[in-house]
Amino acid sequence: MKGRARSVVLVSGGMDSLVTAALAVREGEAAFLHVSYGQRTETRERRAFRAIADHYRIEKRLEVSFPALKAIGGSALTDPSIPIRTGGIDRASVPASYVPFRNGLLVSFAVSWAEVLHAASVYIGAVEEDSSGYPDCRQAFFDAFGEAVRIGAARGESIRIVTPLIRKSKREIVRLGLDLGAPFSLSWSCYVGEETACGVCDSCRLRLRAFRENGVPDPIPYAPGTEG
Amino acid sequence: MKGRARSVVLVSGGMDSLVTAALAVREGEAAFLHVSYGQRTETRERRAFRAIADHYRIEKRLEVSFPALKAIGGSALTDPSIPIRTGGIDRASVPASYVPFRNGLLVSFAVSWAEVLHAASVYIGAVEEDSSGYPDCRQAFFDAFGEAVRIGAARGESIRIVTPLIRKSKREIVRLGLDLGAPFSLSWSCYVGEETACGVCDSCRLRLRAFRENGVPDPIPYAPGTEG
Repeated sequence: MKGRARSVVLVSGGMDSLVTAALAVREGEAAFLHVSYGQRTETRERRAFRAIADHYRIEKRLEVSFPALKAIGGSALTDPSIPIRTGGIDRASVPASYVPFRNGLLVSFAVSWAEVLHAASVYIGAVEEDSSGYPDCRQAFFDAFGEAVRIGAARGESIRIVTPLIRKSKREIVRLGLDLGAPFSLSWSCYVGEETACGVCDSCRLRLRAFRENGVPDPIPYAPGTEG
Repeated sequence: MKGRARSVVLVSGGMDSLVTAALAVREGEAAFLHVSYGQRTETRERRAFRAIADHYRIEKRLEVSFPALKAIGGSALTDPSIPIRTGGIDRASVPASYVPFRNGLLVSFAVSWAEVLHAASVYIGAVEEDSSGYPDCRQAFFDAFGEAVRIGAARGESIRIVTPLIRKSKREIVRLGLDLGAPFSLSWSCYVGEETACGVCDSCRLRLRAFRENGVPDPIPYAPGTEG
């Protein structure tokens, strides 16, 4: 696990993290970090992570499990008794799929690894606009967190938190990924399905709309009857 | 794991976390969180945690393991090939026992649990003065981190990070613990030993000196020849 890398990239296996990874790889040697936490589709997401890391020939990769996040519950992603919303993506409040302070935990661990690797940046594919309604996906959060890292990590002055997609729409993210030749077929975004994407959870709806707006088909398999 | 608590307290099992726990318990119902991460003395520390939680009759308690911190290495506490310093506690730089951004990870997880429990505060027994030289034990770090929590957690406006010992000397911490009737005999601070404390690692030296300055004996067992 030792040695240098330019960046640590949080790669969940979804479309946003794929495009973020494509950007980080372009900047120099990247180390890929995958964190699972007992979410419903963790096996499928881990498979996507490995396929994406193989595609980019990433040598430094780490798969980490935080089952404690499932143990404390509080999210539809980790608690089967809380339903995943499938009715549509309009909303004003924090959705049930919010995992309490997940990005705080994820970025903290990525910073730990970045310290050991002497990496200069941590990439995370969080999206503020046109997206999730999660409070830990806002640029203001990453700004504040970056300040905490600057003060609280031994090499904190040298580690930047990079959020290249934060102001982009999902349409722009797909466009960027297509321009970068990102292998969308290897990514997985659905909150529910592991063989075919459900097509109706928030994550599927946002992804499908983004591909539709770009006039290209999404290459992953969807449940029969899904409107592409 | 559901239900309300007034606070989540990070309890490593050491003397500082014991006194912090004693303060939190005085304020209302507390949930105790113990995080292990493959550090040398994790079995002994977990035993201390359980004994302290039993002493205070804590109902909501959670033991969490982050072995990934050991996997990335970079600290004498988790990597047996890096020696623990035993020569004395004078220093200017970050010691080898620093675990990269550990408190970022610990507080993030405590905030996650506080969100689920609807707890109003997270207590951590970090000590800035007369102590460790760890950058993530400074009040400036917790101030910045608290701001990130305020913005990035769904209930962030309602969660305070409380560091009651941060400005205290070790001498004052022992004094406070004695006044509160904290069971020091149940706590464990040594970085090295699990049956008897070594007496010469930084953590032992600071603890022994603090008891000596208070004119009382430390009730835990030390290696033969240790100067009390």
